[in-house]
Amino acid sequence: MAEKRRTLAQLAEMVDGELLGDPTVTVGGVAELDAAAPDDIVFITKPAMVELLTASRAAAVIVPPGVEAPGKPAIRVRDPYLAVAVIHQWFVAEPFVAAGVHPAAHVGEGCLVPSQVCIEPLAVLGNRVQLGERVVIHSGVVVGDDVMIGDDTVLHANVSVRSGCRIGRRVIIHDGAVVGSDGFGYATDSQGNHFKRPQVGIVQIDDDVEIGANACIDRATFGTTWVKRGAKIDNLVQIGHNVVVGESTILVGQVGIAGSTKLGRNVVMGGQAGTAGHIELGDGVMVAGKSGVHNSQAAGAVVAGIPAIPHRQWLRVSAALAKLPELAKAVRALEKKFEKLAGSI
Amino acid sequence: MAEKRRTLAQLAEMVDGELLGDPTVTVGGVAELDAAAPDDIVFITKPAMVELLTASRAAAVIVPPGVEAPGKPAIRVRDPYLAVAVIHQWFVAEPFVAAGVHPAAHVGEGCLVPSQVCIEPLAVLGNRVQLGERVVIHSGVVVGDDVMIGDDTVLHANVSVRSGCRIGRRVIIHDGAVVGSDGFGYATDSQGNHFKRPQVGIVQIDDDVEIGANACIDRATFGTTWVKRGAKIDNLVQIGHNVVVGESTILVGQVGIAGSTKLGRNVVMGGQAGTAGHIELGDGVMVAGKSGVHNSQAAGAVVAGIPAIPHRQWLRVSAALAKLPELAKAVRALEKKFEKLAGSI
Amino acid sequence: MAEKRRTLAQLAEMVDGELLGDPTVTVGGVAELDAAAPDDIVFITKPAMVELLTASRAAAVIVPPGVEAPGKPAIRVRDPYLAVAVIHQWFVAEPFVAAGVHPAAHVGEGCLVPSQVCIEPLAVLGNRVQLGERVVIHSGVVVGDDVMIGDDTVLHANVSVRSGCRIGRRVIIHDGAVVGSDGFGYATDSQGNHFKRPQVGIVQIDDDVEIGANACIDRATFGTTWVKRGAKIDNLVQIGHNVVVGESTILVGQVGIAGSTKLGRNVVMGGQAGTAGHIELGDGVMVAGKSGVHNSQAAGAVVAGIPAIPHRQWLRVSAALAKLPELAKAVRALEKKFEKLAGSI
Repeated sequence: MAEKRRTLAQLAEMVDGELLGDPTVTVGGVAELDAAAPDDIVFITKPAMVELLTASRAAAVIVPPGVEAPGKPAIRVRDPYLAVAVIHQWFVAEPFVAAGVHPAAHVGEGCLVPSQVCIEPLAVLGNRVQLGERVVIHSGVVVGDDVMIGDDTVLHANVSVRSGCRIGRRVIIHDGAVVGSDGFGYATDSQGNHFKRPQVGIVQIDDDVEIGANACIDRATFGTTWVKRGAKIDNLVQIGHNVVVGESTILVGQVGIAGSTKLGRNVVMGGQAGTAGHIELGDGVMVAGKSGVHNSQAAGAVVAGIPAIPHRQWLRVSAALAKLPELAKAVRALEKKFEKLAGSI
Repeated sequence: MAEKRRTLAQLAEMVDGELLGDPTVTVGGVAELDAAAPDDIVFITKPAMVELLTASRAAAVIVPPGVEAPGKPAIRVRDPYLAVAVIHQWFVAEPFVAAGVHPAAHVGEGCLVPSQVCIEPLAVLGNRVQLGERVVIHSGVVVGDDVMIGDDTVLHANVSVRSGCRIGRRVIIHDGAVVGSDGFGYATDSQGNHFKRPQVGIVQIDDDVEIGANACIDRATFGTTWVKRGAKIDNLVQIGHNVVVGESTILVGQVGIAGSTKLGRNVVMGGQAGTAGHIELGDGVMVAGKSGVHNSQAAGAVVAGIPAIPHRQWLRVSAALAKLPELAKAVRALEKKFEKLAGSI
Repeated sequence: MAEKRRTLAQLAEMVDGELLGDPTVTVGGVAELDAAAPDDIVFITKPAMVELLTASRAAAVIVPPGVEAPGKPAIRVRDPYLAVAVIHQWFVAEPFVAAGVHPAAHVGEGCLVPSQVCIEPLAVLGNRVQLGERVVIHSGVVVGDDVMIGDDTVLHANVSVRSGCRIGRRVIIHDGAVVGSDGFGYATDSQGNHFKRPQVGIVQIDDDVEIGANACIDRATFGTTWVKRGAKIDNLVQIGHNVVVGESTILVGQVGIAGSTKLGRNVVMGGQAGTAGHIELGDGVMVAGKSGVHNSQAAGAVVAGIPAIPHRQWLRVSAALAKLPELAKAVRALEKKFEKLAGSI
């Protein structure tokens, strides 16, 4: 691919940053401080990193407010982390190459496949699948009947999307993820035998969602399991049937959301956390990793523990818990001293 | 597909229910209260839902004992949840279409493949695989050598079944699940190097089992990892080598069962729960979500926590734990008051 | 395949063991005590198992130090578990059969594929993939561009290895595992919208690593996510971007390692345990199953709990915790008695 280059002035404009130093310096990529080539731009997120700058070969640096970068041209921004994401994304973005449908892919009947797509060998589309422009479907992907996939969406290798599901634009689904498998629902008779409840709903994934490798999102029993715009779901996350994941919500690796639970906007759940079913987490709720949320949480709540309690309380409980054996000992000692005193009066 | 229809009388007979109202009303499907079309049957599971009935367009309703359904023909049953599962399953069941073996599937040597099967494009059967009648193997499935699969079993996309495993009848395995990968067993020398213990056993899945997306069931070191009849295993569950999962046992999403553990019949483990290896959970044991079971549990035990303790005790412990900082403070206050009192006598 | 046979003398030499009894007895395989055929060798790991020996039909037995095996020829070794792993591995190892590249596999441009390989039907290699000698790639595997795979490595069905990753020699990757999916990294603007941070690093898997079914190892943001020699990773484990897994480290099923965390050599983490990101676990650290490690741990630490504390302390805390309601009751009783006493003086 052709190399991309931008002047520091152009990059500063891209992220609405303050230019410090020579605007004509050209940059060819983004790197970390200690691995930068002479035409890379690097970034520091806190003042303490400034001293590492001198050893870096980088052409320029992105710095946070109040920080000087002696000897290097710089762009100063409110949030270097955000600026570097935008600039780096620009550098790595490649023009779409419409390889078309590889002859060793399998496309069912009645599909709508624009010419501007890339369907790799040994990918499988069922019948009546509708693809948007510039969709990329990697090898080993299996797309069921009647699935709709929006513009610029990428399905990585061995992803499975079951029939009837709808996937928005600019969605990225990583390898092995499953969208639309049956929800886990049974009715049990008096002898303990389980009867499968048909799972006739779908999964809807809105625009700009990213789904991690081997994550699973079950279809609804009735209706829709819904992952809203901009939600980011990490590897091996489990989303039960009829769950709603709110806009820009973040679910870190191995999180599990039980059936019919609704997560608001910008919820964050740490790794291996889980929720019970049929509860609601309001906008901006934060759940610490490994926690288990049993009850609905109001918007803005920050919780931890099993069952989850307010995080501040959890910190105090955890600290006290580690000293519990000593507390028990103190109580026993006090009981003895009390008995002795009471006996002596 | 042709539309199915049944009169209310026929449906009542199907679930051994009491008919209330016009037996000739015909029904074309099952829906939820608020989404029902005029020829659907709906269901209510508790009396409080009755008031929602009037707004529903449904043709008829399934109700629990003691509940009236004013203005709607109804079927009254002991367990509406169970009745609706049976009726809904009847409506969604489709006649098997024997598409045969797609030319873009790969079938090894010496396989036994009846004409009444459906092997989709880019599915792979190894050598000497034996399939029952009406087996459905979706795209991307890889079945190893010498595997046996019973009648009416469905393997969804990208499932992997390793060599020698045996799968019963009416089994459903969802996308990406792995059956028969090597158990996790090593011997370690004095320098800390691990030597792989060969895993030469198999996995046996009995009739009517359902296995969730991306779940993993390891083959035995020697002998058999065994999932018994009617067990239901959710997405991303991990079953170690030589585990036995009893009949009709339910393992919710992301549960992990360590090697050689035996689960009895009708055990229920909540999401993200786990067990140690080499223990036994008796029939009907219930384990709360996120719990860690370290020791064997007698039949009927209900446990929670890490390590798991009786659930009733766990509820009391959890309540006390949330107040632990206050308890510690109370003890310190008492100590001071005691010292003061003792000093004043 | 031809049957393998070895005399007891040959097997004793293979594991540097002490021969007890007839050295000319021949052995054709390894089995467990109760399932042994007459030409199998069995093993006992503790003296109490000796009494089971008489009922076994086995030809010979491997015993630990200080144990006699009345009536059976035996090999006595320091660690029977290790000896049986070595002997069993020898019996099950099969000569490599170079089936070559199946015509229904797809190989991209510029690949380096030796004649001594086995690429199964419907496996996919991207462009410029380099394979070592005797590599086995099962059906449904998708290998991205520019991947390097070392001698004698096996990728089981439906594994995905993304572009640029490097896999060593004698590596085993089980079905559905994903190597090199994007790390989970975003920058968030003031409105709560997430911007993807490009993940331009790779994953490097060193020699003799084994990776379980449906495990996920993310590529680095910059640089390398690194799994070092001899590490053993179980099913459904999640390894975040830029993690380092030390030599011979063991991660049991469903463990999660958050981004940039470094695990030393011979670390052991029990099932469903997890660590925070950006911490270090020194050599030989042991983490109990289901624990959550929030802070770095010195070499040799043995920890448990959420947050993880020293295991010995955790045992005392757990014991005290189960009695916490009684402790609270005792404190309340003591308070009352104290008030009464204080009031009476």
